[in-house]
Amino acid sequence: MTEPLKLGVAGLGTVGAGLVRLLETHGSRLSALSRPIRIVAVSARSRSKNRGFDTDQFRWFDDPVRLAADPEIDVFVELIGGDEGPAREAVETALRGGKHVVTANKALLAKHGIALAALAEDNGVALNFEAAVAGGIPVIKALREALLPNSITRVYGILNGTCNYILTTMQEEGRSFEEVLKEAQERGYAEADPTFDIGGFDTAHKLSLLTSLAFGTKVAFEQVHVEGIEKISQADIEAADDLGYRIKLLGVAMRTPSGIEARVHPAMVPKHSAIAEVSGVTNCVAIDGDFTGNMLLVGPGAGAHPTAAAVASDIIDLARGLVLAPFIIPSGELKPHQRARLGEHQGAYYLRLSVVDAPGSMAVVAKRMGDAGVSLESVVQRRERHALPGTSKADPTTPAQITLITHETTENAIREALAALESDDRVTEPPQMIRIEKL
Amino acid sequence: MTEPLKLGVAGLGTVGAGLVRLLETHGSRLSALSRPIRIVAVSARSRSKNRGFDTDQFRWFDDPVRLAADPEIDVFVELIGGDEGPAREAVETALRGGKHVVTANKALLAKHGIALAALAEDNGVALNFEAAVAGGIPVIKALREALLPNSITRVYGILNGTCNYILTTMQEEGRSFEEVLKEAQERGYAEADPTFDIGGFDTAHKLSLLTSLAFGTKVAFEQVHVEGIEKISQADIEAADDLGYRIKLLGVAMRTPSGIEARVHPAMVPKHSAIAEVSGVTNCVAIDGDFTGNMLLVGPGAGAHPTAAAVASDIIDLARGLVLAPFIIPSGELKPHQRARLGEHQGAYYLRLSVVDAPGSMAVVAKRMGDAGVSLESVVQRRERHALPGTSKADPTTPAQITLITHETTENAIREALAALESDDRVTEPPQMIRIEKL
Repeated sequence: MTEPLKLGVAGLGTVGAGLVRLLETHGSRLSALSRPIRIVAVSARSRSKNRGFDTDQFRWFDDPVRLAADPEIDVFVELIGGDEGPAREAVETALRGGKHVVTANKALLAKHGIALAALAEDNGVALNFEAAVAGGIPVIKALREALLPNSITRVYGILNGTCNYILTTMQEEGRSFEEVLKEAQERGYAEADPTFDIGGFDTAHKLSLLTSLAFGTKVAFEQVHVEGIEKISQADIEAADDLGYRIKLLGVAMRTPSGIEARVHPAMVPKHSAIAEVSGVTNCVAIDGDFTGNMLLVGPGAGAHPTAAAVASDIIDLARGLVLAPFIIPSGELKPHQRARLGEHQGAYYLRLSVVDAPGSMAVVAKRMGDAGVSLESVVQRRERHALPGTSKADPTTPAQITLITHETTENAIREALAALESDDRVTEPPQMIRIEKL
Repeated sequence: MTEPLKLGVAGLGTVGAGLVRLLETHGSRLSALSRPIRIVAVSARSRSKNRGFDTDQFRWFDDPVRLAADPEIDVFVELIGGDEGPAREAVETALRGGKHVVTANKALLAKHGIALAALAEDNGVALNFEAAVAGGIPVIKALREALLPNSITRVYGILNGTCNYILTTMQEEGRSFEEVLKEAQERGYAEADPTFDIGGFDTAHKLSLLTSLAFGTKVAFEQVHVEGIEKISQADIEAADDLGYRIKLLGVAMRTPSGIEARVHPAMVPKHSAIAEVSGVTNCVAIDGDFTGNMLLVGPGAGAHPTAAAVASDIIDLARGLVLAPFIIPSGELKPHQRARLGEHQGAYYLRLSVVDAPGSMAVVAKRMGDAGVSLESVVQRRERHALPGTSKADPTTPAQITLITHETTENAIREALAALESDDRVTEPPQMIRIEKL
């Protein structure tokens, strides 16, 4: 009989417990494909917690680092989380001990991915992390294997389910950001402190890993330009709809003449596109290659079962003997991430301005744009005014809303125009700017 | 230096020439990943044809079967096409000679896939066919590797670019099937004899391979229920739009209590879904698994470069030493394909009926449906009538159009209702029926 592949699983939260259930359900079928796959030892904070299965069937370790050092295991599965502390220490211990590592820990990889990859390569073992990006979507396999024949020009996607849920719900139900966020927190779709998700940082972690795989560069989370969705208002959602767009929080990495543009920000995508229909907590990743063309992968970006399935797929690869360099090429050969100047970003822009509703306001706006060298594709001025209190008469002091879509221009030109507009007395609120992503 | 992986390429049509160009462009990068990849010999019908590269750099074989037997090659790349003749003979020769085979030939695999898989297994070599299904979309890798942790309940998709181009153009331009088909033929998007594409047979070939991979059953092309798009009219496209749907030619394979339902037919999908936005020659494949949930892969389903990239990805796997059973489990262990009774298919249906525009017609239709046990979700009767020739008066003999959407029911009940309607004097044309696919 073939020697089994012996797993040590650290962390029995939702994903860890999901992996145990998955192997209970499908373990014998998967074991028959190449060699038996068996969890032999586990580690978690509480041994007594009811998880729906008996932890006594596995050897127990209170300390994940001791589990990582256990000579009996072939693969250390890290589902603890956190970019330092026991997760990092245990992963390093496992790799140094010549054990393969499978992890779902994007924060750890965004911070220490290259050092850990080097450690894995030095010890001739794998560092697999399919579950770390876009949950159940096999995007790491796509980049490491299936799409290798391409020179990749851009990789981008909806990588955070919380943000996509909030934006989709605002769109579908016409409700405010604050209201939808509060509801998402009550339902457990958003954290009590939602900054990490809605501020775009979770997306940036994932994007930094995709960037490295797509462009052969060192992971450089700190080089990602990050904006969140906090400032997206119902007025923007509605204006986008009128203009034929949907607003999504995208992570985008692309090659440009001045380097790699890696950015996370709300973006408009055409309403009639598959990516616009990626709704709720679903994620997607698009990959543009010179030979394959444009690929889009859509699926569950989180959740115990999809994430456990991604972890299991990494384990199956190891059972089949497939050990690849974590970032495709040896970590020492990865190039430094040369950051593109965002000011040179080329694209179309949406702007929403509140202006004093008086003759000449539109002319001022048009002039400011023209002075900055920005030409306009469409301009909509909304004429609705609020009523004066206690009357049905329009209040002449209500600002008018102007929404603009520019032709393709540069970020520098837009910033120049915005600075000029902000300093103008006729503009009553800080202007809103949203980039339009060309699909 | 590592020994190169030596390829013999048979067939230098668009895909074969695309592969040569791909290796010219990316060969040195791909060779650095594991071992050098090198085309050493080629075979094609004409040696003198201008292909944009010099065939003299490779050894030349007039006969692909002799190329397949050449002792110098490690991998035989079959890009000849056809389900018999030289393609089959050459693939068999290569496998018997202990050479890996990479092929884009869906017709060959739909007919002889299991016998060829057995031959590959007996000789310890690979039979890779990523390019045979959905062109550049890595769906074979998804099923063979990434999504293995799942029990798959359904696999379906838009697998034929010609049909999707025709249906999308009918939708977008409001033109008839005949007119759009003619234009597609003129532009080279459809064959002079389009039956193989528009009749659904190409989709059925691909679906039979996906079915086998998803459900661990023997390839059974002849068990696929096949309907084409020939009968889809502009009236159906418009009615679908009114009702919130798009019409797509889908290949669908799903587990049911009575066996596997494998079917190719025009289907309605909700307008607001990613699959509805898969337009033109783009393909997509959706895979529903018990752990991962619903995955959708969207990308180019054909074309020289995407197909060549899929062939190249199969070659890279071999260079990396990844040799898997062609249909995941050994071919001898694949179960027979037990065909589900389509009559027991459960789903909602769209029906379009032409009826005599006279009192009582709707009542008759409603009664026929009720008698068959089919309940209705929505009914629309169009009241427009053609004008009497030479006048502006409505012609009372123009039939009225009734479109129905049923609640979920069985195919048997629908067929009973349709038979009753067809035999009714008030129904003036054979009724149209289109299944609604639940996403």
